[in-house]
Amino acid sequence: MVSFKLARTLISISGENMKQIHFLGPEGSYCEIAVNKLVQLLGYSPNEIELVPGSSIKKVIENVDNLDKIIGVVPLENSIEGIVRETLDNLVKTSSKVMMNMEVIVKISHCLITKASRYDEIDTIVSHTQGLAQCNDFINRNFPDGVELKTATSTSEAVRSIMDKPGNWAAIGTKIAATHYSLPVLKEGINDQPENYTKFVLLDNKVADPTGNDLSTIAFSVRNKPGALVDILIPFTQNNINLCRIESRPSKKNLGDYLFFIDFDGHIEDEKVKDTIGKIAPNVDFYRFMGSYPKCSKND
Amino acid sequence: MVSFKLARTLISISGENMKQIHFLGPEGSYCEIAVNKLVQLLGYSPNEIELVPGSSIKKVIENVDNLDKIIGVVPLENSIEGIVRETLDNLVKTSSKVMMNMEVIVKISHCLITKASRYDEIDTIVSHTQGLAQCNDFINRNFPDGVELKTATSTSEAVRSIMDKPGNWAAIGTKIAATHYSLPVLKEGINDQPENYTKFVLLDNKVADPTGNDLSTIAFSVRNKPGALVDILIPFTQNNINLCRIESRPSKKNLGDYLFFIDFDGHIEDEKVKDTIGKIAPNVDFYRFMGSYPKCSKND
Repeated sequence: MVSFKLARTLISISGENMKQIHFLGPEGSYCEIAVNKLVQLLGYSPNEIELVPGSSIKKVIENVDNLDKIIGVVPLENSIEGIVRETLDNLVKTSSKVMMNMEVIVKISHCLITKASRYDEIDTIVSHTQGLAQCNDFINRNFPDGVELKTATSTSEAVRSIMDKPGNWAAIGTKIAATHYSLPVLKEGINDQPENYTKFVLLDNKVADPTGNDLSTIAFSVRNKPGALVDILIPFTQNNINLCRIESRPSKKNLGDYLFFIDFDGHIEDEKVKDTIGKIAPNVDFYRFMGSYPKCSKND
Repeated sequence: MVSFKLARTLISISGENMKQIHFLGPEGSYCEIAVNKLVQLLGYSPNEIELVPGSSIKKVIENVDNLDKIIGVVPLENSIEGIVRETLDNLVKTSSKVMMNMEVIVKISHCLITKASRYDEIDTIVSHTQGLAQCNDFINRNFPDGVELKTATSTSEAVRSIMDKPGNWAAIGTKIAATHYSLPVLKEGINDQPENYTKFVLLDNKVADPTGNDLSTIAFSVRNKPGALVDILIPFTQNNINLCRIESRPSKKNLGDYLFFIDFDGHIEDEKVKDTIGKIAPNVDFYRFMGSYPKCSKND
């Protein structure tokens, strides 16, 4: 009994020091690439962290909100598709402790993964709808006689699905998924627009420290009166704060009722940001500070 | 020869009087319901119009841009999902003659379409990803032992696909798709959020006449300087014009470069709208007027 108790205590101590990073899985997803980049940037050693692939963006965000000592990584925005709605819609539903804390940009580079050694051996290609759409020209150019296209729930699921298939099957996915499932890559970088990036965001229960080059995000809804939205934006100009982006998301109550999401330059601790937020407060029906975090570029 | 010539002339005359309405197909789509509503509102007789289902939103929009005497109908916004990105992204690429001319709102009501007479006979349900997602609670509640879910490219394609399948298959789609493919509806209105609406827009090569209760849409990009976006919005407040929505869409060049889409109250022929547009002109890099059209409500 004693040794059993001791073992439990040891596990518990080890568990307390471990930090869990939940991310949008499965293994081999672009989100896992983002996690690896973040782990390096944050200087975690492999013994300190445990990577937990989540089944959906919603699930990852809910876990950060509801469980202790968990940070999350989810996709936020793609340079071609735009904002990831599932991320915004679920983030705004969390308790106010969940904060956007850090960003990282991953270059999207799709691979043709297959046991075949030539394109003309392949008659079926499987991927996520976006994977297929983003390689449309490549497919038309290299499969002039046509090829059957099948969809999967994610690019990594597509790669997994061809593990037990013969060489007439191919998947479009990441290089790390090919490695993970021990499958050969026939061709790298097959996406039609080579400049394709996705920004991922790290979610934590604290605001990142100011760096002097930060971005902040807020969400709000406005009272239904003419000019209400612009009234909220004017204090930003008065304080010389640049607005980077505005998104409208449906309130999901009535068509035409929106939640607005704004990204602006600055940190919530900056005096001019505090002043601006103070000025807009009387004009909003709903307000949620989503986080301040260092700006990142695709070269980081 | 004479009779042949005459026949050609007759066809040509008939063709000239016919108006083609291209819409997002296939037959039985929610877009076809929108077209039928618009045809009624516009008072067209069945002899005057020909309905042409298009394979994609892009194709419908390109046809309105490139062919003569064609109007188009495409989805613009859903009350839960938000704006239809494919519509905005393709509309802004057209020549400036393509205009948003009229809106119509369709209530989304999914049906369980199957040859089965009881839920427990069904082991496979097929629909568009959104159709399955929007009926998730219904499926969990009524298929407690689980059911296989398969995806199709559209809800109408899902309905078509079960035509030659036995009663253990079901599709989630519209009532008109069930009618079109002569399949029975086992249960109507199975979507989890009953208040689910999609706004469709009619595209034509002219601006709609002012009605006194109109909405206008513009797209623009801003010079990259602090406050540039708010500088563009201030003239709207100065002229007491209400902004209804702002969307940011990626420029698809660099992450962080956006095209903005604004919906505001008023018609392009209103003096205060003309004044506002004149004031924002010096501050935009790119500008496109997308149309003025009567406001519609879900009760229209």
